Amino acid sequence: MRFFSDNAAAVHPAVFTAMAEADRLDTAYDGDAWSKRLDAAFGALFGREVSVLWVTTGTAANCLALAGLVPPYGGILCHREAHIQVDEAGAPEFFTGGAKLLLVDGPGAKLTVDALEDVRSRIRADVHQVQANALSITNATEYGLVYTAGETAALGGWAKSHGLGFHLDGARFANAVASTGASPAALTCDAGVDALSFGFVKNGGLSAEALVLFDPELADGIKRRRKRSGHLLSKGRYLAAQLLAMIEGEIWLANARAANAAARRLADAAGERLVFPVEANEVFLKVSAAEAAALRAKGFDFYDWGVGEARLVTSWNQDMDAVEALARAIEAL
Amino acid sequence: MRFFSDNAAAVHPAVFTAMAEADRLDTAYDGDAWSKRLDAAFGALFGREVSVLWVTTGTAANCLALAGLVPPYGGILCHREAHIQVDEAGAPEFFTGGAKLLLVDGPGAKLTVDALEDVRSRIRADVHQVQANALSITNATEYGLVYTAGETAALGGWAKSHGLGFHLDGARFANAVASTGASPAALTCDAGVDALSFGFVKNGGLSAEALVLFDPELADGIKRRRKRSGHLLSKGRYLAAQLLAMIEGEIWLANARAANAAARRLADAAGERLVFPVEANEVFLKVSAAEAAALRAKGFDFYDWGVGEARLVTSWNQDMDAVEALARAIEAL
Amino acid sequence: MRFFSDNAAAVHPAVFTAMAEADRLDTAYDGDAWSKRLDAAFGALFGREVSVLWVTTGTAANCLALAGLVPPYGGILCHREAHIQVDEAGAPEFFTGGAKLLLVDGPGAKLTVDALEDVRSRIRADVHQVQANALSITNATEYGLVYTAGETAALGGWAKSHGLGFHLDGARFANAVASTGASPAALTCDAGVDALSFGFVKNGGLSAEALVLFDPELADGIKRRRKRSGHLLSKGRYLAAQLLAMIEGEIWLANARAANAAARRLADAAGERLVFPVEANEVFLKVSAAEAAALRAKGFDFYDWGVGEARLVTSWNQDMDAVEALARAIEAL
Amino acid sequence: MRFFSDNAAAVHPAVFTAMAEADRLDTAYDGDAWSKRLDAAFGALFGREVSVLWVTTGTAANCLALAGLVPPYGGILCHREAHIQVDEAGAPEFFTGGAKLLLVDGPGAKLTVDALEDVRSRIRADVHQVQANALSITNATEYGLVYTAGETAALGGWAKSHGLGFHLDGARFANAVASTGASPAALTCDAGVDALSFGFVKNGGLSAEALVLFDPELADGIKRRRKRSGHLLSKGRYLAAQLLAMIEGEIWLANARAANAAARRLADAAGERLVFPVEANEVFLKVSAAEAAALRAKGFDFYDWGVGEARLVTSWNQDMDAVEALARAIEAL
Repeated sequence: MRFFSDNAAAVHPAVFTAMAEADRLDTAYDGDAWSKRLDAAFGALFGREVSVLWVTTGTAANCLALAGLVPPYGGILCHREAHIQVDEAGAPEFFTGGAKLLLVDGPGAKLTVDALEDVRSRIRADVHQVQANALSITNATEYGLVYTAGETAALGGWAKSHGLGFHLDGARFANAVASTGASPAALTCDAGVDALSFGFVKNGGLSAEALVLFDPELADGIKRRRKRSGHLLSKGRYLAAQLLAMIEGEIWLANARAANAAARRLADAAGERLVFPVEANEVFLKVSAAEAAALRAKGFDFYDWGVGEARLVTSWNQDMDAVEALARAIEAL
Repeated sequence: MRFFSDNAAAVHPAVFTAMAEADRLDTAYDGDAWSKRLDAAFGALFGREVSVLWVTTGTAANCLALAGLVPPYGGILCHREAHIQVDEAGAPEFFTGGAKLLLVDGPGAKLTVDALEDVRSRIRADVHQVQANALSITNATEYGLVYTAGETAALGGWAKSHGLGFHLDGARFANAVASTGASPAALTCDAGVDALSFGFVKNGGLSAEALVLFDPELADGIKRRRKRSGHLLSKGRYLAAQLLAMIEGEIWLANARAANAAARRLADAAGERLVFPVEANEVFLKVSAAEAAALRAKGFDFYDWGVGEARLVTSWNQDMDAVEALARAIEAL
Repeated sequence: MRFFSDNAAAVHPAVFTAMAEADRLDTAYDGDAWSKRLDAAFGALFGREVSVLWVTTGTAANCLALAGLVPPYGGILCHREAHIQVDEAGAPEFFTGGAKLLLVDGPGAKLTVDALEDVRSRIRADVHQVQANALSITNATEYGLVYTAGETAALGGWAKSHGLGFHLDGARFANAVASTGASPAALTCDAGVDALSFGFVKNGGLSAEALVLFDPELADGIKRRRKRSGHLLSKGRYLAAQLLAMIEGEIWLANARAANAAARRLADAAGERLVFPVEANEVFLKVSAAEAAALRAKGFDFYDWGVGEARLVTSWNQDMDAVEALARAIEAL
Repeated sequence: MRFFSDNAAAVHPAVFTAMAEADRLDTAYDGDAWSKRLDAAFGALFGREVSVLWVTTGTAANCLALAGLVPPYGGILCHREAHIQVDEAGAPEFFTGGAKLLLVDGPGAKLTVDALEDVRSRIRADVHQVQANALSITNATEYGLVYTAGETAALGGWAKSHGLGFHLDGARFANAVASTGASPAALTCDAGVDALSFGFVKNGGLSAEALVLFDPELADGIKRRRKRSGHLLSKGRYLAAQLLAMIEGEIWLANARAANAAARRLADAAGERLVFPVEANEVFLKVSAAEAAALRAKGFDFYDWGVGEARLVTSWNQDMDAVEALARAIEAL
């Protein structure tokens, strides 16, 4: 019974069905009928004109966006524990041509205007220091917290007031939408987000993520960078079909709700053990080594997270019997 | 009846079957059971130990290999019409950190030792000129010619004598194997090739290409570069499964033979019109504008290739009735 | 008696004098009194507002300019024998983050609108091919030819009509001004040039070149790139003082005239042997191996330039007795 | 009376004299007689074979060294307040092709094995995290502390045990030698340092720093990178002559001793106000805003360093009357 991560779960059947339907000759790259429907499909979801590119990884989505938002000599404000800083092997530096991540602290990997302003205001405007050119946040955060629409808008307003681009790493954006009840637009474009990495792979997809550009001027350069970084697949229709299946059938939202609900059950069981409030599909709890061993002895797999903590992640298709069993096992500790 | 390219054809059913079989929880990235079988499966095919990475595009395979073979200040000898020079949007420069493609001429996008030596020997060894650090060839070439085992070995020997790494862009490597009758090893590692971009997408695959490293020392750095360039998919098992299906069922060879046979039929029809000998699955023929229009009027689609020439490409599942019809239409011109 | 190159000659005394005058404490980097005078001094020379940065090499000037004019995924049209292509060790690729040089032919390393348009028009506008984003020419060219004001304006007009930035490598710009009699502005900003690498080191300077930006929007980014590439010297006043000495005393023009005159004497002697017209301070002449040896036996040093050709370059302080002796030796061949 | 920085002081007369002696035609770049003497001159100083390159800035020296020591996907352990992190505008990222600085804490910008090991040991060895490939320290540090030979050797031993390259930013290396009394070799190559940025500009030089490579295998690549980054001046003899003048006349050591002595006088005056021990030529002291204003009212200029602190830097030619006056003014606060 695995609670390691949502990034290795099986694929939603509708995704395979959609790929099978796309299995006929069409124009290569993104010239096919499915790829051409993406802008409209996502435009309907966000209630405005958008430009959407399929890519195969969140890292590619994040870093293509960042490369579009900052010059090579620029800087990107992000949390010290952001995925782009910690777990992407220097991909932001690679895609941007050497821009610098400017690290900001905050509990639960969540940023505030105050924390950002504290870092930004210390940067001298001279040519010796890397300037801040963009802000990147993750919603839900790496610790499963969510930014509300209001919190995002506050960050977006601050970013704009300093001329910063605004990127949202939405590897678990669906979980954030499900959690907050806010509209996709309220959490992004209405709040000043310029580019969204809209994750599907952690949420039942196979190999397609969506890079959603709210600023149409970004599209041409980022499309060229996509090709240049080897991310323009020739049979792109199979990626576009995945995204359309997830969006048009509202599977993205149903899946996220299911994963969140499973995490909620575990959170309720964990009670005082919780390290952070559980707002999406990740549960961090305090367990001693002996307790962790006891859970594993019952067949539950998960990551240790530093000393005395464990991380549990629930997936879109998490077996609810296993969740229930784990919840009881936690309660019984 | 489309003869545009082999890169947009439908996917072989075995590929989908293999993906469906991989559709269960496993370790993420390349830690799953399928990915772990790749080295052995390709090792059996090449008769030696190899390190194999799945990637989703030939551009990624090519440029990851090149980044492993040359320093950022280095140079790569390739044909002036090589895909890496003409159609990859500067991806080699991006992945290598700005290495330079050193262009060499030759009919049919095919290189010879003499042509290479002519370019190499003109480069001053001083620090003002970019030195040649690697050789990259394409087999089958961009014009559908093939390098035999002997020709490849001659190039490899020359490359080694000058300390150059040797990369083979095998977007249509299967077609070259099918055409020459040589073993995969004879066309690669036995001939001195260090890294092979082994293409499957043009040959019935969906989204998985194999980067085959014959020099095991290249693997660690290239695996880090794969992650860093956003090419490490979390659900890698679906890519590995595609490759295994193609290799273990010998589908790769059967598909290439089918595509080559279709091209052969067209070549026989074209006769004197051929611009190049047809050795794989591409046919370049001389046609006037009126003749091209006549073919299109009969329902045949293809690329114009400069003035007075057309390119026809056959796929693994090309409808043989359409091929026959096109052959007759060409004969009737 | 050396006719190798103008890039190793001694330094004009006024340059040393100016450096000695700058030898007192002032603000570091480019905050000193000398550096602050550069914009005005060059502005007077060009008759318009300009932004001027000192750098220590022509390579730095060229490549900082190019990095400001093209995105990393962009392309730069230049001559196949341009210094940036042949003799800068891949510096354009390094500074731009991997942009591609798009090579154009033409006798004497000189470009024409027709030759440029021929290359540009063959580039497909799709994302697979690197687009042309800038034009870079060299005046005087690598073979000592000059572009007149009219020729430059024609190129500039064409560049603007295609949205291209326009860079002029003026390693021997002074020689071009001296040769054409045109004003500095007529050969640059009036003709659409956005950025000029104004060379002084080949013309009697020590270690300071001027990067002159006619588009003020380029300045901020390029100043940051200058620092980032290690080209912002802390004692910049000694560089600024060099440039001011050359400009304010019109030494730059007097020196160029002297070098051109020396080349003119050699050209007159060479007569039919000339490979190209001599329009600046470089003389290419046809000489057999025996003839070259004969000249060297008389104490004249110079470069062989391919088979059967020799390159003679005259400097600002070329000894006129040596020039006369060489002229007679050539006549006597 | 300026105590801002040592990087804007006037130039030692011997430097100008040496440049004047170099003012005659010689081979360009680093082929001249002066440049060719560098390896031997520095080799004598360090008591072993070295390869020495002149460059014009410490940033260039630092970042060329780092580019030689780490791959683009690598990491460099350094102090959070190191010059390469804080004040070089992202130059390390630019020169290395996007390597990451891995930040370590410690009082006075000084690193210890424990602090380094704490950071290094937290890095997972997988492909998702940037690995540590090199260590870079600054001696004297950004706060004027020095590493002794023993401390440096401890760091070097640790670095080697983990396969890390070892770079020393010696912008004020002369001050560290003067302070510790250790030999140049004891503070570098004997302690495992692979590459030293040996600063002269802050110590009476004009525009030449020395990059000293103790590992001869680094030289070829770094020389190519020097050209490629625009740092190979054509009249290199004027740079080499500067370095030779400083080294061969032992001016470097005399100047550093003078600057250190001036700082010592200020340190003695500061007493309890000192933020850090004064071991080189920088003095950080606690002063209230009113006290700082009082000092400035007496004609002393210096940097505020955060709230309630001031930085005083002494130069090789600091006027000792001014030093004495400042010392008394501090004592009188």
